[in-house]
Amino acid sequence: MKISGQNKLPGEVVALKKGDVECQVTMQAGEFRIVSVITRDSAEEMGLGVGDRVVALIKSTEVMIMK
Amino acid sequence: MKISGQNKLPGEVVALKKGDVECQVTMQAGEFRIVSVITRDSAEEMGLGVGDRVVALIKSTEVMIMK
Amino acid sequence: MKISGQNKLPGEVVALKKGDVECQVTMQAGEFRIVSVITRDSAEEMGLGVGDRVVALIKSTEVMIMK
Amino acid sequence: MKISGQNKLPGEVVALKKGDVECQVTMQAGEFRIVSVITRDSAEEMGLGVGDRVVALIKSTEVMIMK
Amino acid sequence: MKISGQNKLPGEVVALKKGDVECQVTMQAGEFRIVSVITRDSAEEMGLGVGDRVVALIKSTEVMIMK
Amino acid sequence: MKISGQNKLPGEVVALKKGDVECQVTMQAGEFRIVSVITRDSAEEMGLGVGDRVVALIKSTEVMIMK
Repeated sequence: MKISGQNKLPGEVVALKKGDVECQVTMQAGEFRIVSVITRDSAEEMGLGVGDRVVALIKSTEVMIMK
Repeated sequence: MKISGQNKLPGEVVALKKGDVECQVTMQAGEFRIVSVITRDSAEEMGLGVGDRVVALIKSTEVMIMK
Repeated sequence: MKISGQNKLPGEVVALKKGDVECQVTMQAGEFRIVSVITRDSAEEMGLGVGDRVVALIKSTEVMIMK
Repeated sequence: MKISGQNKLPGEVVALKKGDVECQVTMQAGEFRIVSVITRDSAEEMGLGVGDRVVALIKSTEVMIMK
Repeated sequence: MKISGQNKLPGEVVALKKGDVECQVTMQAGEFRIVSVITRDSAEEMGLGVGDRVVALIKSTEVMIMK
Repeated sequence: MKISGQNKLPGEVVALKKGDVECQVTMQAGEFRIVSVITRDSAEEMGLGVGDRVVALIKSTEVMIMK
């Protein structure tokens, strides 16, 4: 399956913080610490846990540039 | 200045494609190729060019997780 | 592969409008006409064409509610 | 009133999960189950409840395509 | 009609730049210059023109904070 | 430092509501009440408090237009 989102950063889940509606997923992707907020329902349906190999997916229009 | 967006990936601009309204910025951040779409106006106000040292800024709620 | 984005609407591409940077993809998903804007590069890498079976993927935090 | 967001999916609220800051709204729109996350304040100002007729509103740039 | 998006800034269109797919809408809202990018199709369906009274609509999760 | 996001609205924090994962920041920017949802971690790393002078940062592609 191909996905239009152009930014795909593979890494490993290093922390999970579950709230009532949302869940914060922290992963290490190469040299970068990436933080994602997804729904708690998604995290549970995916069975997401620390140590999992995952990929961060980010649409190009969501990336700002600082210089 | 501090910014709430938690994902900040420093890197270098490797390509710019200017459209009429939007501009596609491709950068190399560590081992990752990052693609951003910003307005052409922004790219020109920032004087963005190939070789520039920049930082990709991404809000946590914009990051999906694939497993 | 599982993806955290909770909204996945399968359908068929009914129109493509390619700009210089962006590409507008119109699809029919059930009774709904769905319009997506992705990069032209993504559309071409995916070999996207009219008649293709595709799935629209939308993160929950991107959905507003009107009443 | 007209709204620029091109994706408008009418349906019915089937579940509400209120967190401290956010509120997850699940709706049935045609054959699709749609999940939205809005602020709890918005849900309460709108008096949102199960059974309400609502419309999901999604900007085209927020829709990814999978093939 | 009520909309969950909490940020609604009324103002006046001061410039329009139409691209092939996207359209950049610049408006004056109180003391602020607001720039929006919507699809060209939306702009045309709305019959958007300079001088129009419009409202910018922004979801809370799309607003970053700098300090 | 320059940032590509074109909408920068300076103002003052008037309320903070901290959830388990997210934090709702309400600010007064000129005549407008602006509501932002960022992570609680970000709010705490920034030491965000009521009365702080801040700037709301919004990407142009995140702004819808109503007429």
